[in-house]
Amino acid sequence: MYSIPAISAQVSTKIQHNIDIKTKPLGALGQLEGLALQLCLILGTDNPQITQPTQLVFAGDHGVSEMGISIAGNEVTGQMVANFCAGGAAINAFCDQANMTLKVVDCGTVFEQPDHPMLIKQRVGETTAPIHIEPAMTEQQARYAINMGMKIAQQQINSGANVIGIGEMGIGNTTSAAAIMHVLTDNDIDYCVGRGTGIDDDCLARKKEIIRSACLLHQDQMSSAISVLACLGGFEIAQMMGAMIATAQQGCVIIIDGFISSAAALLAIKLSPNVRDYMIFSHRSQELGHHMLLREMNAKALLALDLRLGEGSGCPLALPLMQSALAFYNQMASFEQAHVTEVN
Amino acid sequence: MYSIPAISAQVSTKIQHNIDIKTKPLGALGQLEGLALQLCLILGTDNPQITQPTQLVFAGDHGVSEMGISIAGNEVTGQMVANFCAGGAAINAFCDQANMTLKVVDCGTVFEQPDHPMLIKQRVGETTAPIHIEPAMTEQQARYAINMGMKIAQQQINSGANVIGIGEMGIGNTTSAAAIMHVLTDNDIDYCVGRGTGIDDDCLARKKEIIRSACLLHQDQMSSAISVLACLGGFEIAQMMGAMIATAQQGCVIIIDGFISSAAALLAIKLSPNVRDYMIFSHRSQELGHHMLLREMNAKALLALDLRLGEGSGCPLALPLMQSALAFYNQMASFEQAHVTEVN
Repeated sequence: MYSIPAISAQVSTKIQHNIDIKTKPLGALGQLEGLALQLCLILGTDNPQITQPTQLVFAGDHGVSEMGISIAGNEVTGQMVANFCAGGAAINAFCDQANMTLKVVDCGTVFEQPDHPMLIKQRVGETTAPIHIEPAMTEQQARYAINMGMKIAQQQINSGANVIGIGEMGIGNTTSAAAIMHVLTDNDIDYCVGRGTGIDDDCLARKKEIIRSACLLHQDQMSSAISVLACLGGFEIAQMMGAMIATAQQGCVIIIDGFISSAAALLAIKLSPNVRDYMIFSHRSQELGHHMLLREMNAKALLALDLRLGEGSGCPLALPLMQSALAFYNQMASFEQAHVTEVN
Repeated sequence: MYSIPAISAQVSTKIQHNIDIKTKPLGALGQLEGLALQLCLILGTDNPQITQPTQLVFAGDHGVSEMGISIAGNEVTGQMVANFCAGGAAINAFCDQANMTLKVVDCGTVFEQPDHPMLIKQRVGETTAPIHIEPAMTEQQARYAINMGMKIAQQQINSGANVIGIGEMGIGNTTSAAAIMHVLTDNDIDYCVGRGTGIDDDCLARKKEIIRSACLLHQDQMSSAISVLACLGGFEIAQMMGAMIATAQQGCVIIIDGFISSAAALLAIKLSPNVRDYMIFSHRSQELGHHMLLREMNAKALLALDLRLGEGSGCPLALPLMQSALAFYNQMASFEQAHVTEVN
């Protein structure tokens, strides 16, 4: 049920040729050329268009947030869900600007918010368990959460979206993400754990200690993507994985946000490797481990603006670059059409 | 006539405070926060908005283009002007995508194109002189060209634009730009001269030799921004400088494109230092010297996509980031407004 068809590379020579005969020196549009190629391959048409781009923000709480590893307590997860619904957060401003539809998914938070048209409740529980003491969730919960994530992406695609941005909100979730990165990439904990949204030295030391304990505690149980997710993950990380997998299954484009979104991406790739072909990496964040995490996935991000916010904020910021890549592919004249002497 | 009022830094504490109380960790929006601050200071209002952003592409021919220092001959400058007017170039696609008005300025080209609503003729001549043999233009021509550039920016601002993108087209103009960089920054020629749109090793060696000869030939004449421009510049570089200066004089925002646009920016700063405050640097290009040229101006570009096209292509690509910076500034709630526990 997680299987994804590999992208057909058959037409990539033809697409690359279309790019090369446009009125510009060969390769002169740099990273946008590879982006255009990837988008054409994913969307699989001669005249690819982005339709109804949709940003999903998955919110979830973490048992470890009570351990003093973040700048805030878990009341802030719920408060920010309310802020998203009221339109006051950064992701609201960026989605408005980029014409992205925004949906917030409550994957399991301690402070549940009232119903709201923008809010979709797919609660797996109130919060995960503290990972240094027990697994974050059961494997059954992990699979259930992935399925919930698949369902929501499927719904957006059924409504007309062909690009899905993947973001999150969850106090404590860089702890989960760093632990996942450490286990899946063999990078030393010191390279995986950063200051998240801005913790001090004491807090950072506690955070590393909790991750070290958690990884040691569960080391014999983590033999698969699902078991790593169950031991170290979050409800929102699980649902993000599911949303990525369903988006790829539908032949649509996934935009990855920052560190936590990238950790979920790495887990999704372990679960179903072809999902990687459908991912666009919006930005490289200021979080310490993000650079190495992107490298692990052989990914070059479109932006590097020293963001460290989450919420999916990188996705609407990168969307215009994707639209511009398709604009040059669809609109530019060839040397022959424009009667320009071919310079290549 | 080139003097520019310094930006009032008086209100910057208040603007920074407005940024800091928004519902996000302190500094979490990275480079976008400094961008919002700069845009607020330039536009000088409580609710800054970008209106009718306009891209100017200055076209000009260079005497050195006959010396085998480019991948193309100067017929391509005229052909690309025609391509801009027909809507077939990359800058057309990007401006359409970003809702930027596009105007093409013929500053002096060998192959003059027929009149067109998008084309503004401000021809200083047919082409500059080959700079390794004589000055590119007279100082009188240089001043005249700067004034022409000022006039066109002024017209766009009078029509309602408050953001002006500065781009160019001119076979051979990375040679001019590299020579200007070498003279103004004391960087060795090897660090100033790159492959432009994609020349081979022989071509690169010739290009360096011509720049070396030109800088040696004129060394006693280059004591001011105007004289450097006259000796090494291009008609389009001169008009770009003028457009930058007039835009700043009107309290509007200048977007700088790539290497040539940056060389013009450096010359404009030498002529009228306060112009720097009004400049946003859209991208760091693949051209070898651009990194050092940006550093010389203490500038950090918004994008780094390995572009090497010119045409102003970086400006419409960066515009959405500027709009997003203003969107978060104008729309985001404060911790108090949103009832979110302050995390700073």
